[in-house]
Amino acid sequence: MTGELKQLIGRINEEIDSLQLGDKPKELYEPIDYIMRLGGKRLRPLMALLAYRLFKPDWESILRPALAIEVFHNFTLMHDDIMDHAPLRRGQQTVHEKWNDNIAILSGDVMFVKAYDLLLECQPEYFRELIQKFNQCAREVCEGQQFDMNFESRQDVTETEYLEMIRLKTAVLLGFSLEMGAILAGADQKTCEAIRDFGVNIGIGFQLKDDLLDVYADQDKFGKQVGGDIIANKKTFLLIEALEKAEGSLQNELNHWLGKTEFDKTQKVEAVTAIYDQLGIQTITENRMNEYFDKGFQALDRIPVAEEQKEELRAFAQALINREK
Amino acid sequence: MTGELKQLIGRINEEIDSLQLGDKPKELYEPIDYIMRLGGKRLRPLMALLAYRLFKPDWESILRPALAIEVFHNFTLMHDDIMDHAPLRRGQQTVHEKWNDNIAILSGDVMFVKAYDLLLECQPEYFRELIQKFNQCAREVCEGQQFDMNFESRQDVTETEYLEMIRLKTAVLLGFSLEMGAILAGADQKTCEAIRDFGVNIGIGFQLKDDLLDVYADQDKFGKQVGGDIIANKKTFLLIEALEKAEGSLQNELNHWLGKTEFDKTQKVEAVTAIYDQLGIQTITENRMNEYFDKGFQALDRIPVAEEQKEELRAFAQALINREK
Repeated sequence: MTGELKQLIGRINEEIDSLQLGDKPKELYEPIDYIMRLGGKRLRPLMALLAYRLFKPDWESILRPALAIEVFHNFTLMHDDIMDHAPLRRGQQTVHEKWNDNIAILSGDVMFVKAYDLLLECQPEYFRELIQKFNQCAREVCEGQQFDMNFESRQDVTETEYLEMIRLKTAVLLGFSLEMGAILAGADQKTCEAIRDFGVNIGIGFQLKDDLLDVYADQDKFGKQVGGDIIANKKTFLLIEALEKAEGSLQNELNHWLGKTEFDKTQKVEAVTAIYDQLGIQTITENRMNEYFDKGFQALDRIPVAEEQKEELRAFAQALINREK
Repeated sequence: MTGELKQLIGRINEEIDSLQLGDKPKELYEPIDYIMRLGGKRLRPLMALLAYRLFKPDWESILRPALAIEVFHNFTLMHDDIMDHAPLRRGQQTVHEKWNDNIAILSGDVMFVKAYDLLLECQPEYFRELIQKFNQCAREVCEGQQFDMNFESRQDVTETEYLEMIRLKTAVLLGFSLEMGAILAGADQKTCEAIRDFGVNIGIGFQLKDDLLDVYADQDKFGKQVGGDIIANKKTFLLIEALEKAEGSLQNELNHWLGKTEFDKTQKVEAVTAIYDQLGIQTITENRMNEYFDKGFQALDRIPVAEEQKEELRAFAQALINREK
């Protein structure tokens, strides 16, 4: 990462540290401080700043509204972790584990309010557009989470349904992050749409990359256990493709591993990976992922600013695409 | 209730019925339709309309933003019912009972977004002030709910703490409802503050009235079982006063009933009511309640419009004060 990007992230983190969230009752506000300080790459506010910098240099002027996205993102994590019964977040206890479900519900609600407070720190001429777009995005993120939960108990999820779910759950917020930067820089509607398209398509590609890495990452470089999704029967793009494509004995074998409640983890990961390999799932997924990345970069091409102005955002996206963990 | 008020409520209900909330996934949107159609008195949007009518006649112009308060209120009920493990709401199954906790969390989150959508339907010049005030109110409602939960496991809650809790949990939203009407009618800051004070003080009075009715209502007129709070050891103003005032054998008797896990309900209600009577709790509570009502009406007096203009709002508040259920 360039020194310039590090500087932006440094300022984002400083501003997060200085957020005045509230005081009493402490049960409500401590969990918010806790989750906001668990770290994370701060990609979303960073994307808002980078998008703004395509058009205007004074990115500090939108730092506070950009934080709304990070606060909102962490709010969704706090509520999702309750729903998913997740014990850990960024290697630390989740809020509902460290405190309890009720506190995680209510602290999350207060974070959501804070996101709107921060959005209101933008120039008044952009209030309506920004908040309307944010609302649309927030609603879609909730829809994505509900679809994801619905899929857990379904064996017949289609590729189309899965792609729509990850678009809603993950990609639209990346799209909104970029669009916010463009809106606040006064970009016209077509440009705002193009940069959002860039974000949404890159976002879907990122999620497919996540699904791929979980099976095909180099364990030495990967932060988590390779094969975690296979062990948990998680409905990733790879599994959905395999369920659609497998026939005969391969189908039986896949269903056998999905139905097994007791198994050797390494053995299951190897067996399911072998099924994926026989079905060519890696290539299918890579092709689909690259389609989204290409579509994203085509949208970036449509943005009417000089190519060298786009270099920073392009390099940033490329670095995320090339990541191995 | 006058025909005029019935007409306003009729329009509020029509508008609620026509709210376009969303479609898919149905697990997310059906619970919202369900809770919004459970009924309720629609007091809060009605208060916004009545406050607006103090200053301007065209109340239909703020009907949509006024609905934001009703949607927000029902969102807090949906989340509170999860936290309180409440099985029933307005005599029907609560959302988390009819569906599940996860759906109630996520549907609630989407309702919160909808409240902001509706607020954005006001005149743009009022966006910032209205949303900032709404945010402040929403945060305080969450604080009140957290204090209320904290109080469940405490035996030493003071009168001051209790009054602050009900101010936050219940009264500030009534204050905001009125203030919204005044803001959208273009009233000046002092007037907005006065009408909010009216609402907050009347709201605290209402809650004290609720606490009183639960013990001293006429069972033939009261909708619920008289003594329900006593049976559940609910920390009402009456119980907190009694815990502060009881000494010697009366204190022992009160603690005996609070500690008993198996008891005859009628016997417990009669015994605790007798303790309240010996301590003069009814009069203490009525006096305190009337102080808040008086303070509320004094705030109404400060509003610079003709007395006959205030008659509708005054009569509305008086009807609520005189209610026996």
